[in-house]
Amino acid sequence: MSDLPASLPNFAAGVLCEASGDRLLPAIAQDVNSGRVLMLAWMNESAWKETLSTGRAVYFSRSRGKLWRKGETSGHQQLVRRVQVDCDADTILLHVDQTGAACHEGYASCFFRSVGADNSIEIHEPRLVDPADVYG
Amino acid sequence: MSDLPASLPNFAAGVLCEASGDRLLPAIAQDVNSGRVLMLAWMNESAWKETLSTGRAVYFSRSRGKLWRKGETSGHQQLVRRVQVDCDADTILLHVDQTGAACHEGYASCFFRSVGADNSIEIHEPRLVDPADVYG
Repeated sequence: MSDLPASLPNFAAGVLCEASGDRLLPAIAQDVNSGRVLMLAWMNESAWKETLSTGRAVYFSRSRGKLWRKGETSGHQQLVRRVQVDCDADTILLHVDQTGAACHEGYASCFFRSVGADNSIEIHEPRLVDPADVYG
Repeated sequence: MSDLPASLPNFAAGVLCEASGDRLLPAIAQDVNSGRVLMLAWMNESAWKETLSTGRAVYFSRSRGKLWRKGETSGHQQLVRRVQVDCDADTILLHVDQTGAACHEGYASCFFRSVGADNSIEIHEPRLVDPADVYG
């Protein structure tokens, strides 16, 4: 069972970005202080390298088809304190110091909604910031 | 900015599974007690519905091209205590009670390795179980 991949991360095993042709791996950002999961975004190899070299989270935007330096527009950047990869080397976990709100909707985390067994949806926290103030 | 999708989750926005043609969303499992991120796997709509109806984590295995009822072979099942979706409704977060080891390598979490800025890799914990005992 111990067939740990030698190369980390293994972008060849990534999912295909149909728009750009890139191979992308999911990257989870977790708040290094609270432990809260803040968001999930995607990385190609360039985003990975820039994240490691700068210590700031850089993702690949599937919708825009280019690197997304988190916080470039909003100021809500993520300082990367620790980087992990999973057993299969196809998922990345960043432990980050989050400035402001991780979510473009103005919430601390993109996971601000819970889903019940009956598919009911509950928002259980207030916005930290008004998105119109940040992106408007 | 408040363009929250009405349908949760939005599988049409999922990544394409090249082997099966399914649209898949990433699903993060986080330990409900420790807050530790345990693993990331994938869900299609069937996996999502079965997870909600049974209260146990069910994923879609990209390699096997079928539903993967977590713990079916290993006994290391995940009881789902809370379900969240993100702002774009294209990532799922499960808060789970994990039995045994989440990782098929025998570690508590699939994230048992850290990567340094120089790409050095460090394993920072012992295995909980011997994979050969579970899957052998």
